[in-house]
Amino acid sequence: MAVTLTLLKEDARSGARRGRLRTERGVIETPVFMPVGTQATVKAMTPWELERLGVGIVLSNTYHLYLRPGAEVVAAAGGLHRFMGWDGPILTDSGGFQVFSLGDLRKITEEGVEFRSHIDGSRHLFTPERVMEIEAALGADIIMAFDECTAYPAERLQVKEAAERTSRWAERCLAARRNSGRNPAQALFGIVQGGMYPDLRRQSLNDLMSMDFPGYAVGGLSVGEEKSLMYEILDGLVPLMPRDKPRYLMGVGSPDCLVEGVWRGIDMFDCVLPTRVARNGAFYCRDGRRAIRNAQYKEDWRPLDPECDCYACTRFSRAYIRHLFMSGEILGLRLATIHNLRFLTRLMEELRQAIEEDALEEYRRRFFLRWKER
Amino acid sequence: MAVTLTLLKEDARSGARRGRLRTERGVIETPVFMPVGTQATVKAMTPWELERLGVGIVLSNTYHLYLRPGAEVVAAAGGLHRFMGWDGPILTDSGGFQVFSLGDLRKITEEGVEFRSHIDGSRHLFTPERVMEIEAALGADIIMAFDECTAYPAERLQVKEAAERTSRWAERCLAARRNSGRNPAQALFGIVQGGMYPDLRRQSLNDLMSMDFPGYAVGGLSVGEEKSLMYEILDGLVPLMPRDKPRYLMGVGSPDCLVEGVWRGIDMFDCVLPTRVARNGAFYCRDGRRAIRNAQYKEDWRPLDPECDCYACTRFSRAYIRHLFMSGEILGLRLATIHNLRFLTRLMEELRQAIEEDALEEYRRRFFLRWKER
Repeated sequence: MAVTLTLLKEDARSGARRGRLRTERGVIETPVFMPVGTQATVKAMTPWELERLGVGIVLSNTYHLYLRPGAEVVAAAGGLHRFMGWDGPILTDSGGFQVFSLGDLRKITEEGVEFRSHIDGSRHLFTPERVMEIEAALGADIIMAFDECTAYPAERLQVKEAAERTSRWAERCLAARRNSGRNPAQALFGIVQGGMYPDLRRQSLNDLMSMDFPGYAVGGLSVGEEKSLMYEILDGLVPLMPRDKPRYLMGVGSPDCLVEGVWRGIDMFDCVLPTRVARNGAFYCRDGRRAIRNAQYKEDWRPLDPECDCYACTRFSRAYIRHLFMSGEILGLRLATIHNLRFLTRLMEELRQAIEEDALEEYRRRFFLRWKER
Repeated sequence: MAVTLTLLKEDARSGARRGRLRTERGVIETPVFMPVGTQATVKAMTPWELERLGVGIVLSNTYHLYLRPGAEVVAAAGGLHRFMGWDGPILTDSGGFQVFSLGDLRKITEEGVEFRSHIDGSRHLFTPERVMEIEAALGADIIMAFDECTAYPAERLQVKEAAERTSRWAERCLAARRNSGRNPAQALFGIVQGGMYPDLRRQSLNDLMSMDFPGYAVGGLSVGEEKSLMYEILDGLVPLMPRDKPRYLMGVGSPDCLVEGVWRGIDMFDCVLPTRVARNGAFYCRDGRRAIRNAQYKEDWRPLDPECDCYACTRFSRAYIRHLFMSGEILGLRLATIHNLRFLTRLMEELRQAIEEDALEEYRRRFFLRWKER
């Protein structure tokens, strides 16, 4: 098997687990947050900076790389790792969520999804088999099965059909990999769908478990529902997931959701949020998200987050970074990105330590005493 | 005196000099290229990166910092060095060139220049006295006198009047600093004007030399004239400049002009070009400037410049950097900026070494055998 999870500790009062995920390109300490490098780059960051921030694995997008520069170009480079200069583990998603997000530009059939490129309008077809080919060419360490995501809210019947199709496509992904024999070192994870219907979630998970994937993802959450509903779904689902396999909650990455996801037994997370809000001038503090353009920071000589150890916080003031944003300077969004990523990698370090020390409940309590939605 | 130049070597066949400029914030090896940090940041770069690239001194713009965030904010930070997190020497220009560039938005009188902000249209007045106040508040190591630049082409009478006014303003700058006693550690450089008229240039230089500045700049070149005309002006002017004082050619920084300027005895250069063209996707090679978006680089796995030792060139391919530019990714312009700045700091290192080894003529010959205007 291409990845193996070793559980170092399980929390007695919650579902939380402290683990170690071994891949051919290094060991990932879990629970882990994975920054998103949509187009083979975590926006505004170098691989060297990511390493220094304590990033253990990055995610990249099959849909985007397929369209530009093309999987054949990445393959000609020797794969995604060499192409983007990142030696550590990489996970590629399957493009399922991206083509779902195209709305009117895509048409779903049993065969697959026909869609038009958001770049030039050209027509393309993603099938489970084709996606397995593309992901093999990109060469990530962990790859995702091609799935059908549903919106929120959605009718039960529609969600059921999407979840069942996702199971059939998962079978086809497995078969395609078996038949082609391509890149066997990659680990293929299945994706649980089923929207906000607990029984559909259970059915989807059971379908996938019968196929025995090396890891299981929860897709189709954080698509517009209340956070409390997402937590409810996780409460009903995660305890049923295989104990010895990694559990990955897709597209979730705000600090409070990371704490709640870890509490419920999730091992892996990804999200564009921390880097996207950074480019818009929002930075994380222990008491919530703040906007650097706010006039209150004009002569604030403190770091973005006085408790942070990142380059932005140890070297520059809020006043200076505000000036950079007000002036449209790239360094501003670089520093905010560095800080937000470090905020999350550090949060995960603390969560891991808290599990190890049997202190997760207390850590979570203290976290939410300070954290405010703003 | 706040800066002192020690000449280590003078080239026998040209006017070139190898020197060492001592400031309170460190020693600058000359000839030197100074990257421009218009708004208190060399665009897209961190101070740490600049240091690693071998940058010895950066330039920043009085006009821009006065408008945003305001000199009082920079002063409250403890000066420009602390504000922008750069511990090395800084030079601020006087805003003369910027207000000149405003065209219809400014009106020049003997008193000074009335202008409207390019940001919000608000009215402002720069006089020599006011500019000295602002530059003292910013706190750079080297500051420039307030001057009047002329366009090219321009009538002799207009150029003469501007050069004469520049001399009178230079006197007022000196007097203002004497009277205020502000920030005496700063070195104030005078700026020679006189357009493309050799006798006006000589007159301007003589005026300034009678005031005994610790350094002399050549302004009003590279404003649209042929390079050969710029070189002619330098040929007539530089030999008359004080031997023991630094000579600074303002706004010039393309690789070929650096070689020709050094050959003629210039010690300091600045220019936005290497960083600006980088953001537009142009990168320097030994044989000239190239455009990374060119289709020929789509699967070119070589570095931007195979002879370069920078982070961009030792880690990434042209194909990858092209992909970043085609995809609008910030990392693309970061890597191109790193490379272009390293190209220039390395060129200056080589020029310094060539002077030391009596090999400048040969170095220059070889440089122009390869370099092509593209």
